[in-house]
Amino acid sequence: MKEADIIDALKDSMHQSQADVSLSIGDDGAIIDLDHNKQMVTVTDAITADIHYPVGIEAEAIGYRSLAVNLSDMAAMGGVAKWANLVFSIPSINPDWIKGFIKGFSGIANQNNICLIGGDTLRGPEFFTVSLQGYVEKDQYITRTGAKVGDLIFVSGCLGSAAYGLELIKNKKSELRNDFTDAFLYPRPRNNEGILIAKYATAMIDISDGFFIDLQKITTHVGLGFEVDVSQLPIAGNLTNELTLNKSVKYALLGGDDYELCFTIPPHLESQFLDELSSETNLGFSCVGEIKGSNEVLTFGDKSYDLPNHMFEHFK
Amino acid sequence: MKEADIIDALKDSMHQSQADVSLSIGDDGAIIDLDHNKQMVTVTDAITADIHYPVGIEAEAIGYRSLAVNLSDMAAMGGVAKWANLVFSIPSINPDWIKGFIKGFSGIANQNNICLIGGDTLRGPEFFTVSLQGYVEKDQYITRTGAKVGDLIFVSGCLGSAAYGLELIKNKKSELRNDFTDAFLYPRPRNNEGILIAKYATAMIDISDGFFIDLQKITTHVGLGFEVDVSQLPIAGNLTNELTLNKSVKYALLGGDDYELCFTIPPHLESQFLDELSSETNLGFSCVGEIKGSNEVLTFGDKSYDLPNHMFEHFK
Repeated sequence: MKEADIIDALKDSMHQSQADVSLSIGDDGAIIDLDHNKQMVTVTDAITADIHYPVGIEAEAIGYRSLAVNLSDMAAMGGVAKWANLVFSIPSINPDWIKGFIKGFSGIANQNNICLIGGDTLRGPEFFTVSLQGYVEKDQYITRTGAKVGDLIFVSGCLGSAAYGLELIKNKKSELRNDFTDAFLYPRPRNNEGILIAKYATAMIDISDGFFIDLQKITTHVGLGFEVDVSQLPIAGNLTNELTLNKSVKYALLGGDDYELCFTIPPHLESQFLDELSSETNLGFSCVGEIKGSNEVLTFGDKSYDLPNHMFEHFK
Repeated sequence: MKEADIIDALKDSMHQSQADVSLSIGDDGAIIDLDHNKQMVTVTDAITADIHYPVGIEAEAIGYRSLAVNLSDMAAMGGVAKWANLVFSIPSINPDWIKGFIKGFSGIANQNNICLIGGDTLRGPEFFTVSLQGYVEKDQYITRTGAKVGDLIFVSGCLGSAAYGLELIKNKKSELRNDFTDAFLYPRPRNNEGILIAKYATAMIDISDGFFIDLQKITTHVGLGFEVDVSQLPIAGNLTNELTLNKSVKYALLGGDDYELCFTIPPHLESQFLDELSSETNLGFSCVGEIKGSNEVLTFGDKSYDLPNHMFEHFK
């Protein structure tokens, strides 16, 4: 198996039949036809062993992850993901490993109607870079910077399970497979939901570094604060059972790797937003707090909640 | 200096003021306005130490190269390069090194009016991935697959100097700087010329692996052959002086890293093509042969020219 064979195998694994791709993978570049009412969205992210995932996890999860993290960025823009380019670098070629990688990559690509339009394989350090293009209807994208005082802070899905799963994998329990390890290995980017949320949200980000840190990215830069009731953070029941509520809240608040969406909704749009979303998706959405003019306040119900420094250290 | 500082320094080094960039670097993605008469072109390429350049070359050349190889792919499509995303991975942060990298990257970016719309920095193995978007007027792109029997084979600029320069650098003469090492360290992608050539060419590719191998990429896949007179290959006078004509032809034929354009022109368009190009650019264009229905024939003037296997090995 040579580098070129990898590209061929990748091509064969994809359902590439999109009319808007005039020239696909295999030339110096790709050619895309664009609708003139739309704007192009581009995102790009790399993953590499030890930094973004532990060495030795299954190849399928790595292939899946390389695209999933980019899909999640696209979701956070409210964009429709369409065209992917993959740079694939590995030190040596193991056909079974590559088969697994392709299974993971093409699985999530095909599920999301993504067309692979470009690729490059090289023998080098283990890393995978995807650049993903898509579109939004004119000016219908959501940035990190639009939150206003009084907006409600929402989170999709559940938080904390992926960070706990990562800890299980790192503690040499990699043979173990359960809901927690799966939450880390196969996060589900919220692309369909992102497009719907974009009709209501004032700011949006995906949660990769951890809810608390990612929330700061939509407040700090624009001089805002927040008040969050951590008892309202959405946490899977089995995580609370496994860890106690107190400990699972820490994973939800600081753990990261959730790839859920965090976004802000003006209060007068809340019921309309919840109505539309509940008719379109089974995913849960939790209101966990409110944007404030300054300060970052955490509560646990009626009580104040302190963020101990050692928790940050634990998750660094 | 932290990862985020690198992105800020990169942003500051760029002349980013393009009206078609609605949202630039710093969010989950970027937003681009597209003209509806155009098609989007995307290219993506990674470079990494030891594979694409020798360990230890100056940081400025690495920053320059990361974008230059992508610009060259864009040139080979006949596209106008516009928007770049950079994934920047290094094992440790040396501010002087980063300053050099940014100087090289922003130098060639600003020279080509490229806008940096996305970036990601990480601590990991040394690699740099650029994905570059641009456009062509509708259907005005050139692929690798359009050559026809009888088309003339042209090459831009001069070949061979970069490969010889790479050899000098590898032979621990890295302190040496001359035209040859510069040809390797700072190749000049032919973007302005690529756009003009696209009006005439039937197929085009940029020369990265070596003229002979890259020419095969526009003939073999479509079942064609060629006849090339290697005495017509464009070679800088100082390379011939340094190496003898015979040896410099080998570098020109097989060396690679030239980032010149190889393209095919229908014979009836030749004089019009040469007239327009000579009025628009000082770069030389050499006709080195012709597309044939089958076989790959090399001559040196009137004599036949053999491609010895050991030459291939030398350049692997």
